[in-house]
Amino acid sequence: MRAFFLNGVKNVSVLDIDEPDLKENEVKIRVMACGVCGSDIHSYYGKNPLIKYPVVPGHELSGIVVESKSSLFHSGDRVVVDPNIPCNKCRYCRSGKKNFCEHFTSIGNNIYGGFAEYVNVPDSQVYKIPDNLSYERASVTEPVACIIHGLDIVNAKIGESALILGAGFIGLTFFQILKNMGYNPLIVAELNEYRKNIARELGADVVIGNIKNYVKEKTGNYGVDLIVDTTGSMKLLEESIDIISNDGRILAFAVYDPDAYASIKPSLIYQKEIKIAGEFTNPYTMERSLNLISSGAINLDILLNKKVDINNIESALNGSIKDSIKVIVNNSDNHLCK
Amino acid sequence: MRAFFLNGVKNVSVLDIDEPDLKENEVKIRVMACGVCGSDIHSYYGKNPLIKYPVVPGHELSGIVVESKSSLFHSGDRVVVDPNIPCNKCRYCRSGKKNFCEHFTSIGNNIYGGFAEYVNVPDSQVYKIPDNLSYERASVTEPVACIIHGLDIVNAKIGESALILGAGFIGLTFFQILKNMGYNPLIVAELNEYRKNIARELGADVVIGNIKNYVKEKTGNYGVDLIVDTTGSMKLLEESIDIISNDGRILAFAVYDPDAYASIKPSLIYQKEIKIAGEFTNPYTMERSLNLISSGAINLDILLNKKVDINNIESALNGSIKDSIKVIVNNSDNHLCK
Amino acid sequence: MRAFFLNGVKNVSVLDIDEPDLKENEVKIRVMACGVCGSDIHSYYGKNPLIKYPVVPGHELSGIVVESKSSLFHSGDRVVVDPNIPCNKCRYCRSGKKNFCEHFTSIGNNIYGGFAEYVNVPDSQVYKIPDNLSYERASVTEPVACIIHGLDIVNAKIGESALILGAGFIGLTFFQILKNMGYNPLIVAELNEYRKNIARELGADVVIGNIKNYVKEKTGNYGVDLIVDTTGSMKLLEESIDIISNDGRILAFAVYDPDAYASIKPSLIYQKEIKIAGEFTNPYTMERSLNLISSGAINLDILLNKKVDINNIESALNGSIKDSIKVIVNNSDNHLCK
Amino acid sequence: MRAFFLNGVKNVSVLDIDEPDLKENEVKIRVMACGVCGSDIHSYYGKNPLIKYPVVPGHELSGIVVESKSSLFHSGDRVVVDPNIPCNKCRYCRSGKKNFCEHFTSIGNNIYGGFAEYVNVPDSQVYKIPDNLSYERASVTEPVACIIHGLDIVNAKIGESALILGAGFIGLTFFQILKNMGYNPLIVAELNEYRKNIARELGADVVIGNIKNYVKEKTGNYGVDLIVDTTGSMKLLEESIDIISNDGRILAFAVYDPDAYASIKPSLIYQKEIKIAGEFTNPYTMERSLNLISSGAINLDILLNKKVDINNIESALNGSIKDSIKVIVNNSDNHLCK
Ligand SMILES: NC(=O)c1ccc[n+]([C@@H]2O[C@H](COP(=O)([O-])OP(=O)(O)OC[C@H]3O[C@@H](n4cnc5c(N)ncnc54)[C@H](OP(=O)(O)O)[C@@H]3O)[C@@H](O)[C@H]2O)c1
Ligand SMILES: NC(=O)c1ccc[n+]([C@@H]2O[C@H](COP(=O)([O-])OP(=O)(O)OC[C@H]3O[C@@H](n4cnc5c(N)ncnc54)[C@H](OP(=O)(O)O)[C@@H]3O)[C@@H](O)[C@H]2O)c1
Ligand SMILES: NC(=O)c1ccc[n+]([C@@H]2O[C@H](COP(=O)([O-])OP(=O)(O)OC[C@H]3O[C@@H](n4cnc5c(N)ncnc54)[C@H](OP(=O)(O)O)[C@@H]3O)[C@@H](O)[C@H]2O)c1
Ligand SMILES: NC(=O)c1ccc[n+]([C@@H]2O[C@H](COP(=O)([O-])OP(=O)(O)OC[C@H]3O[C@@H](n4cnc5c(N)ncnc54)[C@H](OP(=O)(O)O)[C@@H]3O)[C@@H](O)[C@H]2O)c1
Ligand SMILES: [Zn+2]
Ligand SMILES: [Zn+2]
Ligand SMILES: [Zn+2]
Ligand SMILES: [Zn+2]
Repeated sequence: MRAFFLNGVKNVSVLDIDEPDLKENEVKIRVMACGVCGSDIHSYYGKNPLIKYPVVPGHELSGIVVESKSSLFHSGDRVVVDPNIPCNKCRYCRSGKKNFCEHFTSIGNNIYGGFAEYVNVPDSQVYKIPDNLSYERASVTEPVACIIHGLDIVNAKIGESALILGAGFIGLTFFQILKNMGYNPLIVAELNEYRKNIARELGADVVIGNIKNYVKEKTGNYGVDLIVDTTGSMKLLEESIDIISNDGRILAFAVYDPDAYASIKPSLIYQKEIKIAGEFTNPYTMERSLNLISSGAINLDILLNKKVDINNIESALNGSIKDSIKVIVNNSDNHLCK
Repeated sequence: MRAFFLNGVKNVSVLDIDEPDLKENEVKIRVMACGVCGSDIHSYYGKNPLIKYPVVPGHELSGIVVESKSSLFHSGDRVVVDPNIPCNKCRYCRSGKKNFCEHFTSIGNNIYGGFAEYVNVPDSQVYKIPDNLSYERASVTEPVACIIHGLDIVNAKIGESALILGAGFIGLTFFQILKNMGYNPLIVAELNEYRKNIARELGADVVIGNIKNYVKEKTGNYGVDLIVDTTGSMKLLEESIDIISNDGRILAFAVYDPDAYASIKPSLIYQKEIKIAGEFTNPYTMERSLNLISSGAINLDILLNKKVDINNIESALNGSIKDSIKVIVNNSDNHLCK
Repeated sequence: MRAFFLNGVKNVSVLDIDEPDLKENEVKIRVMACGVCGSDIHSYYGKNPLIKYPVVPGHELSGIVVESKSSLFHSGDRVVVDPNIPCNKCRYCRSGKKNFCEHFTSIGNNIYGGFAEYVNVPDSQVYKIPDNLSYERASVTEPVACIIHGLDIVNAKIGESALILGAGFIGLTFFQILKNMGYNPLIVAELNEYRKNIARELGADVVIGNIKNYVKEKTGNYGVDLIVDTTGSMKLLEESIDIISNDGRILAFAVYDPDAYASIKPSLIYQKEIKIAGEFTNPYTMERSLNLISSGAINLDILLNKKVDINNIESALNGSIKDSIKVIVNNSDNHLCK
Repeated sequence: MRAFFLNGVKNVSVLDIDEPDLKENEVKIRVMACGVCGSDIHSYYGKNPLIKYPVVPGHELSGIVVESKSSLFHSGDRVVVDPNIPCNKCRYCRSGKKNFCEHFTSIGNNIYGGFAEYVNVPDSQVYKIPDNLSYERASVTEPVACIIHGLDIVNAKIGESALILGAGFIGLTFFQILKNMGYNPLIVAELNEYRKNIARELGADVVIGNIKNYVKEKTGNYGVDLIVDTTGSMKLLEESIDIISNDGRILAFAVYDPDAYASIKPSLIYQKEIKIAGEFTNPYTMERSLNLISSGAINLDILLNKKVDINNIESALNGSIKDSIKVIVNNSDNHLCK
């Protein structure tokens, strides 16, 4: 089978390899669509601590079962994969916090993933997808599950106000969900012109000029109830402390530079009862993510706006594809992918 | 001024009376729109325990300030009213549960309300409305605030499944919010043909035939995560126990007959960890309701589909207006009401 | 090895059987202490739907590892067992609700349990116990984990008021925890004189006469914020609706008769915003239960007040042991058990 | 009447002044006990931004009603006071967040407080105290109400682990509550020898040597689930990020220097899903605080260990009283104070 390999920093190859043996309780999936995630780009540049070279990356994958050693799935099942495999035995797994599993196996990071024709996956990680869902839309079930977990953490509530930092796939998906929930004002900060335009097309109030001034003006100086950071910028996180409202929450969602520090005032945290919270992966939310996606409540097609095939994945990792929100590696014949 | 009076059971009159004196910290509001609520109908039939005859009913009211003895509002301010006045001194008020205030004063129930040309309201109950909001849409801020409080109670979450019992104003507003949140399946049960059609127009999956069978079929026998009852039916509440999923929540939102009993199995509550919860009025949620309504995330115009003037209010109370979702008493010249 | 068998309704035997083979990832535990639970009594009388005769019952077990095919445990480890084995693959397991696992295996119910000299247990179910914990105290880790899960569900909060129905092991453990949390008033209802006395010894305010009157008097007619039912009585559950405060919570913790119905007023649920919730087993709370027990914050020794050996277990099931709170099957030499 | 005045920074006087006129809905309270709070000390040194000189400080006060213009209280009532008077009209008051009231009046900060023989208080701020409660114990109802609000914010749960930074009145009260809840390990960090000893007397595990090392050793490198900071130290807050467990919460409870910054790693917040939250005053928790205190679940007498009279208050502000946890200004004859 064809597979895209990351051999080391900025070192890739596309190879023909043997299909791996299928083990007990595994299914073999012909990958139809696989999203390119920010962490894949980090892996390409050698900045993803989870990666184990050489590896076939790709963890946002959907496809069709072609062989099954599991009683739960059969050939022909259309499926999506949760790439994060818990051990079910460690302290965190047994406390209902499986995203902190001490023996995490991660498809596309430390075992072979979805940038290939086929991948073998334990049945515990596989979900059937509804008929109305294309493989492409299904492929983002995992990142959307991360977003849902984030919304649970900050207890997003109908009719609040928010600021979203960054208008990539993550920011624009948060935006659409919060817009649906009646968030108002609901402000998006972004620098890239192309993304600003997509945000506006989706109905966003995009920051003009200085973020702090803009938010203060739009909220009558109260600040917003919720800030979601998808940029990883220290400066924006620091400014968030000033423009979050009393009792407001800041969600630190981006993959931050491990060496960077933010400088914040505890006196404001105390006095305004600010809540700062991090979010890490997708524990227990895959099913709800599938429900949300197949409900049609959010527009994914506008976000999944660039396609590559297996031979052109590097272009999606090294930044040569412009004006994308999310790039999808599309292995399917067109008619299958919808 | 003209005012509609409820003098007792099914006993109404429209009278010219003196405008009441404006007291310190009050504003005089020219009522522009006032919704007719289920509890007004209960009052008409003598089944509302809160009512004190004779009274001018009407508690879902918006209008324009024409005189102010408050430093917070000025003539010309466009406003909406929270009809439930807390004492701020009782055990419940001081515990953050003002909807249980032991000395509740309720505009339109035990003091004069909005079915009149003018009404005087303490400034603590008045909210300015955004420019983009018509008086009509603003008039339902209170019932929508009740719904938001209900969603907080059951901790509504992105991507769950739900069944809504009843497709009146309340049911269809719950429906729209949950649809926006990616609830899926999201099923509505209703008997009335007109309302079924409105529900379908809004994208609802309307129950055909037996509710229990329908829900089981649509959820692969798992049942739904959330049931919202807006009908007040004992039978539906009893059936809810069977079709709620494990760890599911049932929200008892309707004004139930004070003499009716439901017969439920505690063994199922225990074994399925069912949560049943009631919801009572709109504590602390008026601001969020205004945000939601003015965000445009839900379609109110399709629900506010019948208008009467002050002389025809009885027709909205005695059931002679057919095919309505919510009747609005419109006091405004048309151009002002939008 | 010696093992106590339940062959059918009221049909028991104590047999010498071969020790079962130890499988991969299992540990063999010499059982030192095993609690007798209400559900074991239900099994004896044929009223436990989970049981699969013939079986060795006993699921509240602690002991010492004597052989290990797991890398996580070694001979000599002092351990306690979580009897409820999830599949980790079903909808509930993957949603963080493993207590509703669709393929539940339950030690002491559908596979052999702790009323025996030895038992083999998968390492995913085994927890090391701190040195300061006797086998006896450790043996109740599972029921205490259920209680902790129940307190999470009703969101028990410092300084509220409560009524506990029933003063068995469960009721008196709830009582001690709530007392520590400053619950006040904190009232216990119980009929049995011996248990009333233990409750009083622990500092309880025990109901005298009619429960409803007693609670109203003690709370100035407000009712209590929390009611925990450990009796399974329909009558008490029905009365709870009247004496729960506004915004109060009722926890249905007992194993209720599957055929019994309670008759409740939805109008009170709505008007008082009552929350009724069930609790089922011990998901994700074993670790916290161990922490609580080994902290010494509750007095278990007064509750674990009767011991039997393997030959006398029937006396604990058929009610011939009087004045017990919790009976422990003690397999240990005395010096080991402390 | 005699009253202690703070006229400016380190400028005090004890004066005979006229008793202020009693207004409608107010009660006149003869102050029996009034706690000295950290913020009073800040006021003395000119570091409390809320203070308006000259003022009679003192906001932790209990006493006996000697005159009443309120229908809710009568002469002879034993009472305690909530010093924070909300406006009930601003955005925060109407959203259930009265601690952020935009028109806060604060007894002992911007109006006359409890370091005097008498004080007039609006009835909305007054609570009757149970017979079993001495004036001294009752006087700390407000700081304990702050602590309860803090425990609500971090959702303190049975059987977790915690580190408490600082062993003053606040730290040692947190400690006792968490100990009661089975927190284990439960570690206290403090520098002062006297306070370390009191902490140990209460059963605390007091840090020896380096805090980070100590916590890691005691928790098997997992860190603690909860950290409560009562010291205001930037260094300790920064270190907390390293020794908080995955999914752990840090409560910023101290009054921090308004000019100080802490330097924290967002990458750890994200990766460990750390939650940092502030706590500000006592909204809606006075009643629960009274319940907790009168339940006897915590030992206050050991904490309220120094008494001064009205003429010696400065000694409690300028640090000349050694080895105190909390100083109480005791106006009562001894027999009344118990
Ligand atoms: N927590 C989790 O479980 C989880 C899951 C998935 C993804 N993530 C992380 O979430 C983050 C967002 O993902 P994504 O796919 O949406 O990434 P993305 O496409 O890189 O989006 C981030 C956006 O933020 C913008 N941005 C950066 N700095 C900015 C600034 N100072 N002001 C305004 N905008 C700024 C970027 O603009 P430019 O393109 O011009 O720089 C970009 O459009 C990534 O760090 C990703 O690794 C986390
Ligand atoms: N909790 C609160 O704070 C709060 C606030 C506002 C309103 N409410 C209450 O909420 C309820 C709903 O308000 P609403 O304005 O939407 O009332 P509504 O217009 O009467 O709507 C209720 C709907 O339920 C339908 N229904 C009744 N029995 C049914 C059954 N057995 N099966 C299917 N559908 C059935 C009714 O159909 P028919 O018309 O054919 O009977 C009606 O369409 C009312 O009881 C109201 O008083 C509560
Ligand atoms: N939800 C879960 O996960 C879970 C976990 C463990 C246990 N449980 C269940 O929790 C319940 C309590 O367990 P337990 O071990 O404490 O049982 P228990 O020893 O039988 O305690 C129940 C107590 O309630 C008393 N009682 C019964 N009816 C009463 C009434 N009408 N008024 C006052 N008191 C009454 C009983 O008194 P008499 O002895 O005089 O009848 C008994 O003392 C059981 O149903 C058990 O199966 C549930
Ligand atoms: N959030 C709220 O609503 C609220 C309400 C009430 C009080 N507070 C604040 O809570 C804080 C605690 O109040 P309190 O009355 O308990 O004050 P406190 O008596 O000053 O207690 C603080 C303790 O922390 C110790 N400490 C300071 N730095 C330390 C360090 N680096 N390592 C270890 N221990 C250290 C202090 O020791 P030394 O004495 O040796 O310095 C002192 O024993 C104050 O800032 C107070 O203003 C907040
Ligand atoms: Zn694990
Ligand atoms: Zn009140
Ligand atoms: Zn399962
Ligand atoms: Zn205010």
